[in-house]
Amino acid sequence: MAICFINGNFNSASQCGIPVTDLVIQRGVGVFDSVRIYDGKAFALTAHMKRLEKSARLARIDVGDGAVIEKMTEVVREGAKRPDCPDGGNCIAKAYITGGDVVEHGQFPKPRHFVIFESGGNISTDDYKNGVALQPTDEGRPCPLTKSINYLVGLIQGSGRDDIYECLYCPDGKVTETLRSSFFICRDGKIITAPVGTVLEGVTRGIIIGLARENGFNVEERCPDVSELAKADEAFLTSSWREVLPVVRVGETAIGSGKPGPVAARLRQLFKANLDKWLDA
Amino acid sequence: MAICFINGNFNSASQCGIPVTDLVIQRGVGVFDSVRIYDGKAFALTAHMKRLEKSARLARIDVGDGAVIEKMTEVVREGAKRPDCPDGGNCIAKAYITGGDVVEHGQFPKPRHFVIFESGGNISTDDYKNGVALQPTDEGRPCPLTKSINYLVGLIQGSGRDDIYECLYCPDGKVTETLRSSFFICRDGKIITAPVGTVLEGVTRGIIIGLARENGFNVEERCPDVSELAKADEAFLTSSWREVLPVVRVGETAIGSGKPGPVAARLRQLFKANLDKWLDA
Repeated sequence: MAICFINGNFNSASQCGIPVTDLVIQRGVGVFDSVRIYDGKAFALTAHMKRLEKSARLARIDVGDGAVIEKMTEVVREGAKRPDCPDGGNCIAKAYITGGDVVEHGQFPKPRHFVIFESGGNISTDDYKNGVALQPTDEGRPCPLTKSINYLVGLIQGSGRDDIYECLYCPDGKVTETLRSSFFICRDGKIITAPVGTVLEGVTRGIIIGLARENGFNVEERCPDVSELAKADEAFLTSSWREVLPVVRVGETAIGSGKPGPVAARLRQLFKANLDKWLDA
Repeated sequence: MAICFINGNFNSASQCGIPVTDLVIQRGVGVFDSVRIYDGKAFALTAHMKRLEKSARLARIDVGDGAVIEKMTEVVREGAKRPDCPDGGNCIAKAYITGGDVVEHGQFPKPRHFVIFESGGNISTDDYKNGVALQPTDEGRPCPLTKSINYLVGLIQGSGRDDIYECLYCPDGKVTETLRSSFFICRDGKIITAPVGTVLEGVTRGIIIGLARENGFNVEERCPDVSELAKADEAFLTSSWREVLPVVRVGETAIGSGKPGPVAARLRQLFKANLDKWLDA
């Protein structure tokens, strides 16, 4: 059962609420970040919480001198070790900062914040074994450096079909990122992924790029053209929760052989082997 | 003070909350509609509640056979006449449907709903006398027929400057709508506004187009090119709360003489004169 830290206390998440006057409910003014918890230890905690702070500043939500971020970082650490942390401390901690009730000169000076610990989402061993399919959409994700809660359009684009894992944003014929993950293709001996700024600064993305380069892979940071999907040898996505997940189809286009490829498998293996480096003490 | 109807009761809005587990908070899954209340009477209530139902369906939020919409319609009527309705019954009623806690096959089968009655926003006599300025943005509003709560990008685009009323969406060089209103220009003896589908089906927009045509104006429904702004004689926006509000500048471009024009004034006068037609009994 999900637990939540709000207003200074941990509680069952279903008992925790936000007033209807908060702009997160009324106008989607809210940012968040997701931290994976492995056996009670947070993964890449500082990097995620720095990104949360950046998202808040870009969304003009006042986080002051960063004390709020420090406090939330401590809450993630504390919650991860609680006996009631979901799934024995193998879950997702999501830290939210809402717009609060007030807007002044286009700024949100009185945010609320909470951290919810809950079971991870829809991912199975089969997804790693068989790979997943994505639904391309012409839409882009506006303000890509801000991890805001405004997911509705992306959720609608990739939904209603059980064979689709999530949408792949392809604005103006360029492949950027998926609803919740960074996206990579392998082609002509290179790993290709969109540069930060056109996409969110994925924490796992950065770790995977580093591991790939250290291990002799050639990584190119540019947005692949949609037409390159048909020519790719393989594709995969990365995120804290998904680690490295093979993609075998985008819309009607099979990727490579239509089966998970060796690069994704190798990178996930490297990620697992090095995981300790990014786990909280 | 704002009041809210939720879970079967009216209360002070600050006492009403939504659980943090609701996808409206976690992922921006929510739709709403705003109904202006004049002296305890709702304006164009049925049209707004039909649009709310449409928004919910487009967002894949289950509203069943429409009984929820009927109930919310009754709540707007009832709240509008309460002694504690804000500003003596001259306010805005906002009806929300949230995604709830559950997503199944890309649908949201267990929504929550509430209606909040609050004071209207930032509009003054000076705004009508002097007109307002808009900030153009290259972004578009995705899924334009859905009035979702995903306003963050638009709020950021037009914010931080006290001289800017709100943003004007101009994707691909085409003028569509503003953050919260329909947008019109007057040029070469015509009134021009974007067609429904590229923009939200504005209720006041439809009423104003009808009044304009009945009174001998020529109305063309197409997206003006951004370059036409500099050539326009005047511009204005429409919404329930704003009625007909003159626009005198877009970015650095003065519209016409840089002062409110006669068409907007005439249309607002016609609107006021005919208002009773759309007021609830």
